[in-house]
Amino acid sequence: MTVTPPPVPSDIEIAQQAIMRPIRDVAADLGLGEDDIDLYGKYKAKLPLSLASAPPKGRLVLVTAINPTPAGEGKSTVSVGLSQAFRRLGHNAVLCMREPSLGPVFGVKGGAAGGGYSQVLPMDDINLHFTGDFHAIASAHALLSAMIDNHLYHGNALGLNPKGITWPRTIDMNDRALRSAIIGMGTGNGTMREERWVIIPASEIMAIVALASDAEDLELRLGNIVVGTTLGKEKKPVRARDLGATGAMTLLLKDAIRPNLVQTLEGGPAILHAGPFGNIAHGCNSLVATRVGLALADLVVTEAGFGSDLGAEKFFDIKCRAGGLNPEAAVLVATVRSLKMQGGVAKAELDREDLGALERGLPHVAHHVRNVQQFGVPVVVAINRRTSDTDAELRLVADYVATLGVPVAMCNVWAEGGAGGEALAHEVLGLLNAKTSAFAPLYATEQPIRDKIRTVARRVYGADGVDFSSAAEKSIDWLEANGMAHTPVCMAKTQYSLTDDASRLNVPTGFRMTVNEVYGSAGAGFVVAKCGDIMTMPGLSKKPAAEGMRLRADGTIEGLS
Amino acid sequence: MTVTPPPVPSDIEIAQQAIMRPIRDVAADLGLGEDDIDLYGKYKAKLPLSLASAPPKGRLVLVTAINPTPAGEGKSTVSVGLSQAFRRLGHNAVLCMREPSLGPVFGVKGGAAGGGYSQVLPMDDINLHFTGDFHAIASAHALLSAMIDNHLYHGNALGLNPKGITWPRTIDMNDRALRSAIIGMGTGNGTMREERWVIIPASEIMAIVALASDAEDLELRLGNIVVGTTLGKEKKPVRARDLGATGAMTLLLKDAIRPNLVQTLEGGPAILHAGPFGNIAHGCNSLVATRVGLALADLVVTEAGFGSDLGAEKFFDIKCRAGGLNPEAAVLVATVRSLKMQGGVAKAELDREDLGALERGLPHVAHHVRNVQQFGVPVVVAINRRTSDTDAELRLVADYVATLGVPVAMCNVWAEGGAGGEALAHEVLGLLNAKTSAFAPLYATEQPIRDKIRTVARRVYGADGVDFSSAAEKSIDWLEANGMAHTPVCMAKTQYSLTDDASRLNVPTGFRMTVNEVYGSAGAGFVVAKCGDIMTMPGLSKKPAAEGMRLRADGTIEGLS
Repeated sequence: MTVTPPPVPSDIEIAQQAIMRPIRDVAADLGLGEDDIDLYGKYKAKLPLSLASAPPKGRLVLVTAINPTPAGEGKSTVSVGLSQAFRRLGHNAVLCMREPSLGPVFGVKGGAAGGGYSQVLPMDDINLHFTGDFHAIASAHALLSAMIDNHLYHGNALGLNPKGITWPRTIDMNDRALRSAIIGMGTGNGTMREERWVIIPASEIMAIVALASDAEDLELRLGNIVVGTTLGKEKKPVRARDLGATGAMTLLLKDAIRPNLVQTLEGGPAILHAGPFGNIAHGCNSLVATRVGLALADLVVTEAGFGSDLGAEKFFDIKCRAGGLNPEAAVLVATVRSLKMQGGVAKAELDREDLGALERGLPHVAHHVRNVQQFGVPVVVAINRRTSDTDAELRLVADYVATLGVPVAMCNVWAEGGAGGEALAHEVLGLLNAKTSAFAPLYATEQPIRDKIRTVARRVYGADGVDFSSAAEKSIDWLEANGMAHTPVCMAKTQYSLTDDASRLNVPTGFRMTVNEVYGSAGAGFVVAKCGDIMTMPGLSKKPAAEGMRLRADGTIEGLS
Repeated sequence: MTVTPPPVPSDIEIAQQAIMRPIRDVAADLGLGEDDIDLYGKYKAKLPLSLASAPPKGRLVLVTAINPTPAGEGKSTVSVGLSQAFRRLGHNAVLCMREPSLGPVFGVKGGAAGGGYSQVLPMDDINLHFTGDFHAIASAHALLSAMIDNHLYHGNALGLNPKGITWPRTIDMNDRALRSAIIGMGTGNGTMREERWVIIPASEIMAIVALASDAEDLELRLGNIVVGTTLGKEKKPVRARDLGATGAMTLLLKDAIRPNLVQTLEGGPAILHAGPFGNIAHGCNSLVATRVGLALADLVVTEAGFGSDLGAEKFFDIKCRAGGLNPEAAVLVATVRSLKMQGGVAKAELDREDLGALERGLPHVAHHVRNVQQFGVPVVVAINRRTSDTDAELRLVADYVATLGVPVAMCNVWAEGGAGGEALAHEVLGLLNAKTSAFAPLYATEQPIRDKIRTVARRVYGADGVDFSSAAEKSIDWLEANGMAHTPVCMAKTQYSLTDDASRLNVPTGFRMTVNEVYGSAGAGFVVAKCGDIMTMPGLSKKPAAEGMRLRADGTIEGLS
């Protein structure tokens, strides 16, 4: 039997019908007066950075997921819904999420701020420009780029190797024509060299804004950025600081470093701040935003990019470690449909009940549960209901999860909002009340880079071992000799598989990971290990979402979804 | 004898010491309640676009200048000071100015919002990001760029000639390495082609935002943008509309089209909005901002880029014509120092009294006075005092201007603020009270393109005639055959000379103008005629202003001036 909830309007219809609270009232709920915040219109505000250094009073809950599939898991929607559910149950809960990039907004899917009755508002503003953080990051990035080429043009006193420049250019747009270019052509236009553009979530400055603990730390990290190496054999790192760019970059980011307050569809506080990629960066909202949430609320719900193999691992090993955060519970989002895909069903067949395929996909949940548990954090599985799920399918998943010894909750936040997340909220509160959390990162940063990579590959992905390309071997040696020996590692691999091969679903065994490129993000403070090609500049589709967008005469928006 | 006013602190010191009024109070002075505006922090606000369609109650005063020299004329400073003076005299005056670009902020001079005691505030925010208008324009521009290359990639159904694409890419930064590039390199990255970047004030979208009368007109103009021509002999224009980009571009600009309210150093209202180049575009703040000013105030002071040959001519022939504005008085700013340069003195020698050189430079003032007068607008000459000016020099200029039959006023707004502009304000009020203005544009748009160009060259620059390159001839024929026959012309030439040769100062005679390139800005609604090379992407200097900038621990800024 198929459960058929009442029809749910489109995301933007729901968003436009919502009556928002003035954001100053939302801020007042958190104990903030008008002088504490800076309004950006009536429904957005910048929060004071000083709160990020205030003592935490809240408890931190991570929302993660199984590996993403085209079936969709709804991790952001569950995060919003869970925060709404907490508030319905009388808790002072805050949601902390990433800001969306314009690239995907105009590319495939239109916006990214939850969905259905579990969204953050104002949906249109959040998806377009928001409070300008990404533009500020793009400006700071572009200033450094311009100062690099300007340095080459005016005599190259630092001896920067024009062929050794690793700092790319950036833009917040899906623009495949900028993946590979030659710049500086023509007389008087500087040094001709190859250049590549990355989309703004892939900018190291995005990761820096997400990891900086305050304005001083921001400036320190910006100065540490390595833009390339010197000419000659020694190949010494050249930093943003050496170019005299740090101060002006910090100025450009003085407001972007402050977290943004908006609201959920049910009027609760949501702090949206930063949005680094989940592969070449760590895929979490900013540390300062999470800390501000912990200073103001009793419960903070946050999420991390992709599945637990990428997002949760980096949340724990990079963000929580950097920020001294203490996550006390985690939610693992799964859907019947995506588990059927893990079990071998094609997307077109997902509407049909298939208990066999679902059963084959269940070990995938178990793997992700163990991933979270090995960090010492207790976990609840949230089965995010979709209209095509049958009772038998839902029961099969729930029964299986019970055998793992972890709680499970049905979740229907897309169709029902916070009410659809109350069962999940109760399970999370149960974990928090049991106080069993004993969070610890997976590895010590003092280990050699290769060992840190091997630890993640074996324990999180289930790999038998790691192979390093000769280029990766060389890079690791250089990084260990140039001050990057003792940072966390940031693994960049496909989000669709636990392996480095996107086609291998479920729980592959008997595989090795191949690290083909390693580089340092000295400002962000981690070493990136790339397994396979990672797309850092998406392209638009044949029919981009942008083509369907329009501002109506009444000021409302069509086509943003 | 040298007049020595008390020492004046640096611009940013003055700005930081100023006690700003909450912007809602400034808005209240204009009769606007809190629901009418959207705050961007405590000292910036977006004004409602609907006011741009309200009936005008104010009278419009243009501030223009003689040709710029390295000596500095202070046109923006006089504009701010004049609006401050009007308010000191009890008038409800509003200042309407352009927004600055980040390029010059980090390049040569750091900031651009008046100077001394005649500035607009908050100076730092205005110079960095402000309310995000330029970033929004850059996004809309970049979306169109990405959609062009995406169209080529996905089969090029419109038959767009990859070598006939005239839409450049843009960035708000001085970045000479992007003047000439090859993009789309590598497999799967689209069509390899040449590309150039222009700085954001040179984006046609900047001119469109500055000339659109409302949201509907904005969308129409965006759709009209010609991005290139079709393959084959016919070379038909391909427009943003054909690419399906218009709706999404309009969405990106929905807030950028609203004027911004800030304040002068003396707490009066200042509307800053848009900032198109004064050469390849028309160099004025937005039409909607000026109209909002006219709807709210009794007196509106506005300025236009460079000297009267570029800025005032375009203000009258392009902006006032497009918007049905009725300018009733003009201020022509001149300084002793820059007139001495027009008379042949080198910059290093300017501190020395030189009555001979000054006398030789005086006809330059007369030429600019006549430039304004031929539009039917009465003019007053403002002698903007500098500390090195001697009494004899000041008297020489004043006496000369008197012989022209136009009023003259000493102006010391940099050192004294509004008080130093009261004499000028009285003279402007005198012109307004006399009601002698009979504004009319210089030419009818129905004239052939070549005739319109010749009219401006002869009557405004004093040229004997115009020579067109063969490329320009071809372009004009194409434009007249493709719907651009009846727009105003936008002359792009050096701002330093009345001719097309930057080295020819004062009032050259016996010269012809050479138009080497003509192209249409179909969205902006004018035809650009380029005389000589016009730099649309500046470079940074050997020691860019950015290197001296820093955010202090107390949150104040160092190095922005």
